[in-house]
Amino acid sequence: MIHPLDVIIHKRDGLTLTPEEIQAVITAVVTGKGITEAQIAAFLMAVFQRGLNTDELAALTKAMRYSGETFDASPLQTFTIDKHSTGGVGDKTSLLIAPILAAAGLAHPTPHDTPGICVPMISGRSLGHTGGTLDKLETIPGFNTQLSLTRFLEVLRTCGASLIGQTPTIVPADRILYALRDHTGTVESPYLITASIMSKKLAEDLKALVLDVKTGSGAFMKKYEDAKFLAKLMVETGEASGTRTVALLTTMDEPLGRYSGNWIEVLECVDIMQGRRHPMSADLIELSNILSGWMIYLAGGAETPEAGARISDHILATGKAYEAWLRIVEAHGGDTAIFTHPETFHKPLATRILTAETTGYLSTIDCTEAGWAVQRLGAGRTKPGDPVSAHAGLEVHAKLGQKVEAGQPLLTLFAEEESLLAEPHEMLRATYRITPEKPTLNPLIREIIQR
Amino acid sequence: MIHPLDVIIHKRDGLTLTPEEIQAVITAVVTGKGITEAQIAAFLMAVFQRGLNTDELAALTKAMRYSGETFDASPLQTFTIDKHSTGGVGDKTSLLIAPILAAAGLAHPTPHDTPGICVPMISGRSLGHTGGTLDKLETIPGFNTQLSLTRFLEVLRTCGASLIGQTPTIVPADRILYALRDHTGTVESPYLITASIMSKKLAEDLKALVLDVKTGSGAFMKKYEDAKFLAKLMVETGEASGTRTVALLTTMDEPLGRYSGNWIEVLECVDIMQGRRHPMSADLIELSNILSGWMIYLAGGAETPEAGARISDHILATGKAYEAWLRIVEAHGGDTAIFTHPETFHKPLATRILTAETTGYLSTIDCTEAGWAVQRLGAGRTKPGDPVSAHAGLEVHAKLGQKVEAGQPLLTLFAEEESLLAEPHEMLRATYRITPEKPTLNPLIREIIQR
Repeated sequence: MIHPLDVIIHKRDGLTLTPEEIQAVITAVVTGKGITEAQIAAFLMAVFQRGLNTDELAALTKAMRYSGETFDASPLQTFTIDKHSTGGVGDKTSLLIAPILAAAGLAHPTPHDTPGICVPMISGRSLGHTGGTLDKLETIPGFNTQLSLTRFLEVLRTCGASLIGQTPTIVPADRILYALRDHTGTVESPYLITASIMSKKLAEDLKALVLDVKTGSGAFMKKYEDAKFLAKLMVETGEASGTRTVALLTTMDEPLGRYSGNWIEVLECVDIMQGRRHPMSADLIELSNILSGWMIYLAGGAETPEAGARISDHILATGKAYEAWLRIVEAHGGDTAIFTHPETFHKPLATRILTAETTGYLSTIDCTEAGWAVQRLGAGRTKPGDPVSAHAGLEVHAKLGQKVEAGQPLLTLFAEEESLLAEPHEMLRATYRITPEKPTLNPLIREIIQR
Repeated sequence: MIHPLDVIIHKRDGLTLTPEEIQAVITAVVTGKGITEAQIAAFLMAVFQRGLNTDELAALTKAMRYSGETFDASPLQTFTIDKHSTGGVGDKTSLLIAPILAAAGLAHPTPHDTPGICVPMISGRSLGHTGGTLDKLETIPGFNTQLSLTRFLEVLRTCGASLIGQTPTIVPADRILYALRDHTGTVESPYLITASIMSKKLAEDLKALVLDVKTGSGAFMKKYEDAKFLAKLMVETGEASGTRTVALLTTMDEPLGRYSGNWIEVLECVDIMQGRRHPMSADLIELSNILSGWMIYLAGGAETPEAGARISDHILATGKAYEAWLRIVEAHGGDTAIFTHPETFHKPLATRILTAETTGYLSTIDCTEAGWAVQRLGAGRTKPGDPVSAHAGLEVHAKLGQKVEAGQPLLTLFAEEESLLAEPHEMLRATYRITPEKPTLNPLIREIIQR
């Protein structure tokens, strides 16, 4: 019989925990028996301070992954793959990647008549300054993100991709631990972040996983070395569980693509899938193709990631992704009619334009502050359960490194009411820096981490 | 407005906390408002891992000291002094020191007709393998350790010493923190131990404090360097609050004196005060005189601690301590008639003798194990609130370094019933080591720590 108190003391003193010790703590956390909230908090703080080695982190991730109901993809006899982003502003690549991969998988069915690739994507909601895939999808009338695992499997079989939310029964340990971490100062541990993310992703029963680890002013990990450390932990942990895992360290120094919000991000993706490539969407399209390219490559659909990216772009350009998208939305009960004229569905009641104060090069943005402005406009939440606005957010008219003239529009702000515009407008105004010299920008892809 | 969560995060990240931040946490702990048990636990673990500098520790101790009702000794216009031991086996020096100092103080009244020295001793109960002064005193029929602070002041005025227990209103922060530390693996932090001990001792409104920091096999701090580090922290913290503080690092490698238990420890002290000095009590008498000597010296009653120790021994030898003892016991409502033939009050129902297995020198004892044996015999507790036996415990017949013959009695075990003897007997048997060579023993006083 292992007592959680002894495990706390061992970690406190810097000893290496056994898988059995870690399992005992997670079992107690989930059953609520033999451990108090204070003990869980002490354990989390001890882990925060002492860290976890590769084996401990794999054991914690495994114990959390199997702490509740688990998804079993084996009936599909397909190649399951997903991507996960550590969170950014305007980051809507999932809305493009899921249909791109679905199209790739549908084009190459297995002998069992299932798509050759499936994307069983369990997504999250907006958190702090970052957006959430579920909030975006739910702006589509009728779109149901709360499928049973049986229905999830059916949608994957017919569509090649399905996008659902966490259920109370999948990885319950993470929900309990996250709620405690949030108010005990133990959120920012790379070890606990890895266990949280990877336990949920690995619960999707994946053959491979591509991680988009953001770094820069809009990322949770603002320092490059911190992001790289996290990426390495996640790759090690994925590989330890038998899932091929690759992490791309990508730049999040400004909002990705043209729009940041909820419906307007869907709108941007639908535009792209329908063949309209707005210049402000170029970075989004590039990043989505690179991530999809890696996924296609890992699934065996291309010789190299670069060849995979070309396949991805072809799928987008030929309307195959859009076809897959319509099929996925329909399977989730969504109304696809609104995609005929998607721009007419965007109805913010109040707008304001932010203009350049001087002439020069758009040099830096505090992208986290921009994310908070999006949240204040109504697109994000202050606390879990708050409603989010479909139409609130930003449209970007100029990207970093671009020459702008004084008075030129930089952004359009959207909100549900006029009174919500002033504060975000000021936050955004303060965050833009225009300089006489052309700035040196970070490349979109900084580094690839793989075993 | 300082939020406890921010304080947790600052300490977690190794920043130095301000007195206001520490005060905010302690205020929240005591009022129960604005902090959860999980947050307190996270704070405690962060302090455990990161430590506290001198200013932080002084601020924490002060915030805890003033977290409830405070004792004010100023009406006495006297020199208040106390001693505190970090806990040992058979450690009953308080029962001798309080009357010795009371006698010294009564012999030199102030112009205000109060004793020149007063000992306002707030003591604890048996904890783990160590005994507690309150449990010993309460074996005296009628002895009341739960005096109001008004009555405490009165007893000090008339007797020069009073021995009471913690009240729920004095230093409530410590009670709350200690209960949490006990089950979150944050007991063994020298910083938290210092704040706990010093907040309670300083709440006695002391001019000076002598600390008996135990080191050795029966101490909580078994390693010499750990005990020394703790002693330094406590001295720094006492001095920072304006209380002259001296710590003696003393050896706790075997039970102190002749008896270990509850009533039998009172019996041993009464014997000494009545002029009967059993050879097995020599170490107890020596340590009590040295500690009392430091206290008399700090109170201005002697030129040196050594001269103070000679005064102490004289007070004992001349019956002045016994007179003071009777006066203190009476003032607490205790029945002094039992001291006429104190040995007749010792009525264990079951006894067993442990004998030497071989001939040689008594070389080592695991004194913590001996303490646990005393607890199992019935003299200690498994959990707070458990009753303790007055008569259970040990009588020591041989001390470390002594030559013993095979079959010679080493110990007599006392218990309330026969069935309680077997396990402690075996524990004790296993812990005694007899060697052919005479062992090298640690001196009773290892080092003096003062500013």
